Amino acid sequence: MKKIGKYTLAAELAPRFESAAAIGGKEEKNGPLGSLFDLAQEDAKFGCKTWEQAESQMQRLALDNALAKQALTAEDLDFLVGGDLENQCTATSYSSLGMGVPYIGLYGACSTMALGLALAAILTSQGAARRAAAVTSSHFCTAERQFRYPLEYGGQRPPTSQWTVTGSGASIICAAPVCTNASAPCITSVTIGRAFELGVTDINNMGAAMAPAAADTLLRHFADTCRKPSDYDLIITGDLGQMGSQLLLRLLAEGGLVCDGKTEDCGCLIYDRSDKKYGSGGSGCGASAAVVNSLLFRMLSSGQLKSALFVGTGALMSPVSVYQGEVIPAIAHAVAFAAPQQEEKWKYC
Amino acid sequence: MKKIGKYTLAAELAPRFESAAAIGGKEEKNGPLGSLFDLAQEDAKFGCKTWEQAESQMQRLALDNALAKQALTAEDLDFLVGGDLENQCTATSYSSLGMGVPYIGLYGACSTMALGLALAAILTSQGAARRAAAVTSSHFCTAERQFRYPLEYGGQRPPTSQWTVTGSGASIICAAPVCTNASAPCITSVTIGRAFELGVTDINNMGAAMAPAAADTLLRHFADTCRKPSDYDLIITGDLGQMGSQLLLRLLAEGGLVCDGKTEDCGCLIYDRSDKKYGSGGSGCGASAAVVNSLLFRMLSSGQLKSALFVGTGALMSPVSVYQGEVIPAIAHAVAFAAPQQEEKWKYC
Repeated sequence: MKKIGKYTLAAELAPRFESAAAIGGKEEKNGPLGSLFDLAQEDAKFGCKTWEQAESQMQRLALDNALAKQALTAEDLDFLVGGDLENQCTATSYSSLGMGVPYIGLYGACSTMALGLALAAILTSQGAARRAAAVTSSHFCTAERQFRYPLEYGGQRPPTSQWTVTGSGASIICAAPVCTNASAPCITSVTIGRAFELGVTDINNMGAAMAPAAADTLLRHFADTCRKPSDYDLIITGDLGQMGSQLLLRLLAEGGLVCDGKTEDCGCLIYDRSDKKYGSGGSGCGASAAVVNSLLFRMLSSGQLKSALFVGTGALMSPVSVYQGEVIPAIAHAVAFAAPQQEEKWKYC
Repeated sequence: MKKIGKYTLAAELAPRFESAAAIGGKEEKNGPLGSLFDLAQEDAKFGCKTWEQAESQMQRLALDNALAKQALTAEDLDFLVGGDLENQCTATSYSSLGMGVPYIGLYGACSTMALGLALAAILTSQGAARRAAAVTSSHFCTAERQFRYPLEYGGQRPPTSQWTVTGSGASIICAAPVCTNASAPCITSVTIGRAFELGVTDINNMGAAMAPAAADTLLRHFADTCRKPSDYDLIITGDLGQMGSQLLLRLLAEGGLVCDGKTEDCGCLIYDRSDKKYGSGGSGCGASAAVVNSLLFRMLSSGQLKSALFVGTGALMSPVSVYQGEVIPAIAHAVAFAAPQQEEKWKYC
């Protein structure tokens, strides 16, 4: 891929989104997308001793499933790119252990799926790799005790708060000439975001912290590519939730972009929106990982969507930075997909 | 860069290591390399309110100094790649805030300088970027309370333990045609490591946990490139410390590689080796960041070293994974440098 603007790269021969798999937990299984997951388990520990081991296990299951669908093995991967929300990104470090694949560890908070897809696309589009896997995860139980309270405490949640998704997703990205899947969607461009904030410090309102970064990246994507929202069948954000999604539309309108009716959010799709238990919606690296690698991959592969723009969103704070009263920086990365045989029609500035 | 082996990429036209800067704290200022740092402050808070803010401030100082040396600004950067040891990599998230540069967050623990250099080299060698900065840091006070004990506790340390470096380094990497520095070293190849372990669980012996990963990456680098240790003037590891460095030589000898007299370690160079206070030597992302961007950059730029192989080493555990009795996974990434006008002589398999 080559730079076509300050923040955006596009490929002459678009890399292929060759395979995908998504794993969920009990809440996700019972949600509207439950039947689309490759595996969804009632047991929050996935047969392991600890929640942390379970999160790594979900990543391995996602990757194994994604590889198996195209009769591939870890041997076929030139790189594994990924990360997660656990301190020191241990879910991914442990899941990759023993796999024998060169590992590029990422930290993008909940934007990790988009960052991983973008980097895998860059690496495979120019000979640095033939095939790379992007993987990430989150787990309600590992996140809750790390970022908020012990589960046993039963802390109250305001309506702006979100529910960390127990889920994982793996994407296999490959250079077009080596792709074995004739109905693979392709990645036509990527926009790498910058750390951005508009003064939000409320740890219980991640949607408000991330919406400005999503708007910033979308505005830059459309400026860099000379495209319009109407050029995409769908613009899907990571985990803004219901409140963050409304805020995004307002920020985009202020920036001169009208996207009404065109946007969705992985965090809003994964649970029953009317159930107050989930607050503003799902969040965590696993939210977009599970939705992109199930629903979005299928809709693009089947041609039901001709094109889509996925904007992964992440809040880059830590409990320490929040206790110290720091503002919450956020980031968003965008990945543009086209259905099979659709990418030739794309022209940039 | 293109793959020349399972783990290694090499460039036809090597990207340039255009500029570098290193920042240190009081202990580092008083060490053998103190006079080589661009800035070394007695004040552990660098004029900030918190140690965490100080760590971000060191990153900004490192990057500003590296850019200023070649009359560049953040506007000249296509990407910032970096990360650190703080939970959720906040030192880098906050340092990059307001800079307006597309940010690829990395997690490689103490191998982050090598991972950042490698990724910046890949991005700039093939048109994905003209110029990218790699940055990382560590801070004794932020690391000690996060990974070990409150500083006030004054915990005892075994001789295998290491001293987290208060330091930061920034490297500017650019495509050869846009390089403004005629004496810039170049990056000829990179080897991306895999998560690796040989059963070490002792949190006070990071050198033993990381040495197997360093050996693994070195063996793969030499196999992939058909080069020998004697092809490099220096092989410099990140933060194995004195004990880890001895172990590395034994592991390499078992693998058939004789490197005696050829190796050094950034963690061993940064403090007085005879001072027991520092245990086995310096550690942390800042150890290799400060040494590579001061001593190594100067020795390569001046031609004092014709070539060098830097092997950044990282231990990928977290306090939680250690409490849970998990083994400590480690990783090492290698970056091969050549002095100006030396890269044409390099031939691979």
